[in-house]
Amino acid sequence: MASPIRRIAVNTGGGDAPGLNAVIRAVVLAAIDRDWEIFGIERGYGALLGDGDMIPLTQEAVRGITHLGGTILGTTNRGNPFEWPSTGPAGNPIVADRSDEVLAAFRARGLDALIAIGGDGSLRIANGLARKGLPVIGVPKTIDNDLGVTFVTFGFHTAVQTATDAIDKLHSTAASHERVMVVEVMGRHTGWIALHAGMSGTADVILIPEIPYDLERICGKIEARYANGRNFAILVAAEGASPRGGEASYLESGAPGREARYGGLADRLARQIGERTKRETRSLVLGHLQRGGSPTSYDRLIALRFGAAAVRCAAAGRFGVMVALDPPAIRPVPLEDAIAHIRRVPLDSDTVQTARDLGISFGD
Amino acid sequence: MASPIRRIAVNTGGGDAPGLNAVIRAVVLAAIDRDWEIFGIERGYGALLGDGDMIPLTQEAVRGITHLGGTILGTTNRGNPFEWPSTGPAGNPIVADRSDEVLAAFRARGLDALIAIGGDGSLRIANGLARKGLPVIGVPKTIDNDLGVTFVTFGFHTAVQTATDAIDKLHSTAASHERVMVVEVMGRHTGWIALHAGMSGTADVILIPEIPYDLERICGKIEARYANGRNFAILVAAEGASPRGGEASYLESGAPGREARYGGLADRLARQIGERTKRETRSLVLGHLQRGGSPTSYDRLIALRFGAAAVRCAAAGRFGVMVALDPPAIRPVPLEDAIAHIRRVPLDSDTVQTARDLGISFGD
Amino acid sequence: MASPIRRIAVNTGGGDAPGLNAVIRAVVLAAIDRDWEIFGIERGYGALLGDGDMIPLTQEAVRGITHLGGTILGTTNRGNPFEWPSTGPAGNPIVADRSDEVLAAFRARGLDALIAIGGDGSLRIANGLARKGLPVIGVPKTIDNDLGVTFVTFGFHTAVQTATDAIDKLHSTAASHERVMVVEVMGRHTGWIALHAGMSGTADVILIPEIPYDLERICGKIEARYANGRNFAILVAAEGASPRGGEASYLESGAPGREARYGGLADRLARQIGERTKRETRSLVLGHLQRGGSPTSYDRLIALRFGAAAVRCAAAGRFGVMVALDPPAIRPVPLEDAIAHIRRVPLDSDTVQTARDLGISFGD
Amino acid sequence: MASPIRRIAVNTGGGDAPGLNAVIRAVVLAAIDRDWEIFGIERGYGALLGDGDMIPLTQEAVRGITHLGGTILGTTNRGNPFEWPSTGPAGNPIVADRSDEVLAAFRARGLDALIAIGGDGSLRIANGLARKGLPVIGVPKTIDNDLGVTFVTFGFHTAVQTATDAIDKLHSTAASHERVMVVEVMGRHTGWIALHAGMSGTADVILIPEIPYDLERICGKIEARYANGRNFAILVAAEGASPRGGEASYLESGAPGREARYGGLADRLARQIGERTKRETRSLVLGHLQRGGSPTSYDRLIALRFGAAAVRCAAAGRFGVMVALDPPAIRPVPLEDAIAHIRRVPLDSDTVQTARDLGISFGD
Repeated sequence: MASPIRRIAVNTGGGDAPGLNAVIRAVVLAAIDRDWEIFGIERGYGALLGDGDMIPLTQEAVRGITHLGGTILGTTNRGNPFEWPSTGPAGNPIVADRSDEVLAAFRARGLDALIAIGGDGSLRIANGLARKGLPVIGVPKTIDNDLGVTFVTFGFHTAVQTATDAIDKLHSTAASHERVMVVEVMGRHTGWIALHAGMSGTADVILIPEIPYDLERICGKIEARYANGRNFAILVAAEGASPRGGEASYLESGAPGREARYGGLADRLARQIGERTKRETRSLVLGHLQRGGSPTSYDRLIALRFGAAAVRCAAAGRFGVMVALDPPAIRPVPLEDAIAHIRRVPLDSDTVQTARDLGISFGD
Repeated sequence: MASPIRRIAVNTGGGDAPGLNAVIRAVVLAAIDRDWEIFGIERGYGALLGDGDMIPLTQEAVRGITHLGGTILGTTNRGNPFEWPSTGPAGNPIVADRSDEVLAAFRARGLDALIAIGGDGSLRIANGLARKGLPVIGVPKTIDNDLGVTFVTFGFHTAVQTATDAIDKLHSTAASHERVMVVEVMGRHTGWIALHAGMSGTADVILIPEIPYDLERICGKIEARYANGRNFAILVAAEGASPRGGEASYLESGAPGREARYGGLADRLARQIGERTKRETRSLVLGHLQRGGSPTSYDRLIALRFGAAAVRCAAAGRFGVMVALDPPAIRPVPLEDAIAHIRRVPLDSDTVQTARDLGISFGD
Repeated sequence: MASPIRRIAVNTGGGDAPGLNAVIRAVVLAAIDRDWEIFGIERGYGALLGDGDMIPLTQEAVRGITHLGGTILGTTNRGNPFEWPSTGPAGNPIVADRSDEVLAAFRARGLDALIAIGGDGSLRIANGLARKGLPVIGVPKTIDNDLGVTFVTFGFHTAVQTATDAIDKLHSTAASHERVMVVEVMGRHTGWIALHAGMSGTADVILIPEIPYDLERICGKIEARYANGRNFAILVAAEGASPRGGEASYLESGAPGREARYGGLADRLARQIGERTKRETRSLVLGHLQRGGSPTSYDRLIALRFGAAAVRCAAAGRFGVMVALDPPAIRPVPLEDAIAHIRRVPLDSDTVQTARDLGISFGD
Repeated sequence: MASPIRRIAVNTGGGDAPGLNAVIRAVVLAAIDRDWEIFGIERGYGALLGDGDMIPLTQEAVRGITHLGGTILGTTNRGNPFEWPSTGPAGNPIVADRSDEVLAAFRARGLDALIAIGGDGSLRIANGLARKGLPVIGVPKTIDNDLGVTFVTFGFHTAVQTATDAIDKLHSTAASHERVMVVEVMGRHTGWIALHAGMSGTADVILIPEIPYDLERICGKIEARYANGRNFAILVAAEGASPRGGEASYLESGAPGREARYGGLADRLARQIGERTKRETRSLVLGHLQRGGSPTSYDRLIALRFGAAAVRCAAAGRFGVMVALDPPAIRPVPLEDAIAHIRRVPLDSDTVQTARDLGISFGD
């Protein structure tokens, strides 16, 4: 039987995602409702390793934050306790495994459970710590919606809405200026945002990592539009889309951070399409806009449900799991399963079929 | 084997819902993609009974409409061919069963299939016509999200977002003026909008038809907030919420139309709460705002998928069905099943449990 | 020459208005930039009379508030020190002149200037205190935009945008349902919101207090639309609009508070129009929605400019004035002038002429 | 005395701007109200030179377009009749003066007046044609708000709002990731959008063409923030901002079109700031987003007023003028004056002073 919980902590890892504050609020209120103490760990695992504070989270601390972007825990640190940035004997930068210290600090502070909100990378860390005995529960967080075992993650719908709003705005300008517009959205490994925003925003071409594209076919679709009297075209590309036989453009750069690579695909596609079609072609890279802003009501609700479900898992002694949406319910799944594979757009889904029915080209 | 389709029609029934145009666009483009002719029936079944036109729908006709509210088919007429408004022998208004005429007119025009977009009432009519032999496919449309066999209907998320935006705006005013605000949202038989918008908008009290409320408990919750130093409260009520042992306020009026009754609950609750708590209490009735506006990307996508799926059903000769979301897929279900029962908020769902964890009162 | 300022205070009076926090932020940062101490007076003048606190306002206190609705000073109290709610000798409620106490408390706290943010009522109080020697500077705040000497007040544009967004949403629903929609917006004495939102939102009829309406002419306009094949109509009415020879509906009720009276006009107009035209007619009362939400960029900017200008007045020893927009500059005007008359919609303005050119009826 | 008007035309030139359709609608309805015929000239002056059509504009044609971005006249062609793209004797591309043909075609079609909606370039063309005898009235259109004689142009406020919304979204992400964000907005010669959106969006640094910047001072401001515990910074730069002693980055490229040069400044600034401060720095280029979308109510109203005022000028026989906002009225000013100089941000304005009071750095 699970030992009673008295004290838990919550941390966040990875990039910003709309709904983070809603998760935190639900975790805090559901914990307080059970008379538990609840702390926020600043800077990912940093506060357990001397970098940052443990913040007691009260009802007052989470007041009026459901609709706010960002996170009241401040930074979403990316530090990995298994590969913590350190200094080698010669003063050179190395990484050190400080996971044991995390566990020791966790116990020393009398914590009974950790709720770790994060994406693929953060959940791998959580799983590693769980295997070493840390009582951890994961909450899925990825704008890209690419986690394997949950139907959806929070933040995704807001990102899609932001991208859709942007594409809506571009229609009149593309038409007035008789231009081809290339819009790059997030999605390094999967095309969920591109597919959903492209369809909602009435794109003519959607490029996703799951379907390698052929530049000639893209240009053919564009020319067909012009031939049909439509003097503009909108192309929406996931950042990880790649040409048939080629590699994703974001792999070309050696830069370590994800965002450093935004824009390469859009700019290159615009240049290539402009050269081939002789049509004025412009690019727009939405980048960080997709991570910010007030979460949609959909994301607020799913975030609140994830947060409360994580606390219920803790109360039930269910550790080493991630809460996942299995419509209509939220269920715990083993962290091992959650990180085993990513969720790609199924090419035989009715959504992809609908896009084709609408005349949208995937460049294939 | 299904006979080949060459000519189909689409109509809409019941109230306005964001996403209607997206359904129509998908139906039209998917039909044209199959080289079918496609017509829009004006005024529900009116155009088949001499009231309104059959509009040929072309690619041009559905250009740029995905993001627009309303419907390009004009009115969403509520005429029921089984009870068509007519004039009796003495000149008095009566209703007449003109369903046979609808079938005859349908065949006379050489139509092979009808795609009927509508809510509970319209789907009952569609089912009645299907039983008489009309090759019909239903597309679910209800702001309230109360259809039994589909996980969600289009328009619902936009209504929730509109209600959430309104509640967001009221927070600062309620706080600045130290008031109790009662917001009435749609939901005659079910509390989906109230529950989702109330949770997303951080309501303190949510009243839904599924949980009869006790006025004393509502006032108790409000007083507890003031005692706790929070000098305002937000209450979100579905129009069909009713007191324990009482009846829904919308049943009190004998008025025939739904919207005629908007506001009765909110005004009465505000008065009752104001009298009991001696706090300034104001009401706001969102009413028609929830039916209008540009659909969210979520609703656009589900509407497009429903429309394309309906055409695929027609191509496959699957009639007498409604397309329904069974995540992640869209599937046809018999119309009989679709109208058999409404989908109420399950009181043991994790969503309701999350609301309670957050300290939200249902007045029970 | 003005004695040097070291310590100032800011308060707010009257209803909520988007941009209040932006004014407060600019006042605080501009004061701190001059090495002044700055305090917020809670609850209007309450904190100087024992009801509420004087809150030291720091850079930290005003961080990230420009875009937030409401006010960090909490309640916008309506207490008038010249008529302060009190208890008579027989225990009966009376009002007492406590203005001398306000001045004494102000001096006892070593304050050198007061920046009073408020509408007509609050500015009258400020003027009364100024005549008694209080070094006060007013900042105009009225959603209705009816202050005589400033070209515009903050909050007005946000209210117009909110009303316009609502009217936009109603178009598709009015058209789909073939209805007349009556929308009531704020504006007790002036029709600025109704005129600007009505024109922006493509209303067919706009009713404002400056132009008494004739019900027959309204109905005539509506019938002309239907005769012209347009099966719906949108009517926007300022709450203070009144029939020719009649009185504004908000005067009919004896209720003391403004908001208590929302809705009377819209409901009555909808009933009267429905009876006369036999068209389905519905009403929507926007009420408090117009006071809330994030201020538009226009309102944020004008609010920031007002706040900083008020501090510059204090630095220059200009008291007994209100900061006013005299495009393109902000200038101080005597408080006496600011409250001398309200600013009505000029009936010979090009805006009103434009409305008539567009075919909009004022019911006259 | 002016000869009576019977037939007028309207055209648009230059880039897309929110509010174009509202101007067109007001022109059309005000003309129809006077029983004039009204035509839209497709593709700028193209339709008078054989490229495009003259479209009869009816009440029906301008129905429901006030809130739509783009222009129902289709392309906003940039063709200049004084330098019309043509083919030289050797088949080489040259430009030819075809202005006489424009006048001849105008008269041949029996037109009595032309309402030309455009920015600086289009108004210069209009002025050239006016000097040759064309009865033309200009309507100012520039997102940048840089026309000399009008207080504001339509489209500007929508662009500011779009940029402000984007900056709002970036705050949480910049804070969560501890980054410096550089946002490039429009404004080649003037900093109006950058100044207004930067102040509304709480930027830390605003760079405008009117104030050459010093990179060291920018970095100093950023470092001061980090030293003060604020681990992120937002920098908003007009595309035409240039370093002290340097030139605007958009002049560096030889590319002919304006938009071709978007982004150069932001990317370079991000790199330079990142190198100097060692802080993670990212750039975002809003580009075309600022030209699209539904116009704000402010822009709709000013656009409607401009359109109706232009028709009143035509009715009064006032030609060779541009309608301009001289608050609170719209007045005609000679086209010569309208194009004589651009309107720069006055450095001694209270708005710039307010920005400095708020602690915003202009990099000077």
